[in-house]
Amino acid sequence: MDRKIPEETIIRLSYYLRALFYFTEENKKVVSSRQLADFLKISPHQLRKDLSYFGQFGKKGVGYSCPKLIDNIKEILGLEREWSACVVGFGNLGRALSFYKGFRDQGICIKAAFDVDKNKQNKTIKDITVYPLEKIKSIIKKQNITIAIITVPKESAKQIAKILYESGIRAILNFAPIKLDVPEEVILKDVDFTCQLTYLTYRLKLLEKED
Amino acid sequence: MDRKIPEETIIRLSYYLRALFYFTEENKKVVSSRQLADFLKISPHQLRKDLSYFGQFGKKGVGYSCPKLIDNIKEILGLEREWSACVVGFGNLGRALSFYKGFRDQGICIKAAFDVDKNKQNKTIKDITVYPLEKIKSIIKKQNITIAIITVPKESAKQIAKILYESGIRAILNFAPIKLDVPEEVILKDVDFTCQLTYLTYRLKLLEKED
Repeated sequence: MDRKIPEETIIRLSYYLRALFYFTEENKKVVSSRQLADFLKISPHQLRKDLSYFGQFGKKGVGYSCPKLIDNIKEILGLEREWSACVVGFGNLGRALSFYKGFRDQGICIKAAFDVDKNKQNKTIKDITVYPLEKIKSIIKKQNITIAIITVPKESAKQIAKILYESGIRAILNFAPIKLDVPEEVILKDVDFTCQLTYLTYRLKLLEKED
Repeated sequence: MDRKIPEETIIRLSYYLRALFYFTEENKKVVSSRQLADFLKISPHQLRKDLSYFGQFGKKGVGYSCPKLIDNIKEILGLEREWSACVVGFGNLGRALSFYKGFRDQGICIKAAFDVDKNKQNKTIKDITVYPLEKIKSIIKKQNITIAIITVPKESAKQIAKILYESGIRAILNFAPIKLDVPEEVILKDVDFTCQLTYLTYRLKLLEKED
């Protein structure tokens, strides 16, 4: 990984992409950095700085071509191609993520799900089959899956991460509220809904102080 | 809002809090900034800079007292008190969030859920009752709810946001993949799973280039 590029920049690139899709839907072909930045409530300086890591985009005094910048960001994020992923844990969250339209729109395709519950196994819903955990290794190989999403309870998350690693997975999105010990070469991203929610409580508390 | 404090700092405070809980569970009473930073794979400089916005914590050469720093961060984030929230949209994601243990652990209590589907309405699961949308205003008032989580499809998200605003809600966590037009005074945070996942595809692509 290029150490000079902050993780936040990469996350923001996704937001830029989403904003560009929005402007495209509104039939806008060109946007200024001010418009893009305003849309996302960040500073134009931040936007230009983020993009400058990857090259020179847009024309001074004109702005960015939406379709061109979409292609550029997709290429940076590896979204010019398709990715296969699986979901381990087919509870409420696992189901929500399996059918999350946003993934497929970006070319990230959930190919399989796994769950320990026998009642959920061997059923296919909207093209996604739920397999028993014993099949993780064989299905990942067969379906050429490179990304795994963990939504199992925290008690079993570490063991699942181990099985996924042994199955060749090198990129994990982890929703289990636990620190996973994965080898250095595994790209791990934790998602914690609490962080998003406590940003709201922080801001609400500030507001109350102002009143 | 104090404009000088970046949103990313607030989000990282949540991560620090989570890490401190982890160290506490491991019976650690004091941690150094290096240990905390290593745990979260950030630089000690970043950690110290984030905390410095809010005062002087820890002792030079000794580190941070875990219980004290937990209390300090909880106070900054407004988590020294309880918050009441509701979930609008009781699909897979709505259900997952309604029963998300992490919220309750932080004193954020989901008090009610709302859904347009008659089959889901007027049922109570684990203390959470699902009400029809028509009841949003009255339940929010009755239950003193200050935070709303939107998980409805994007087609109805704007209308829901309007109803929530009219019901007095000033903090919204939005999972619908759409830009909500809310008045300036509403604190809005969008969550998009695609951003987390494309961070993985970005890193995977970098790895392939290196090979």
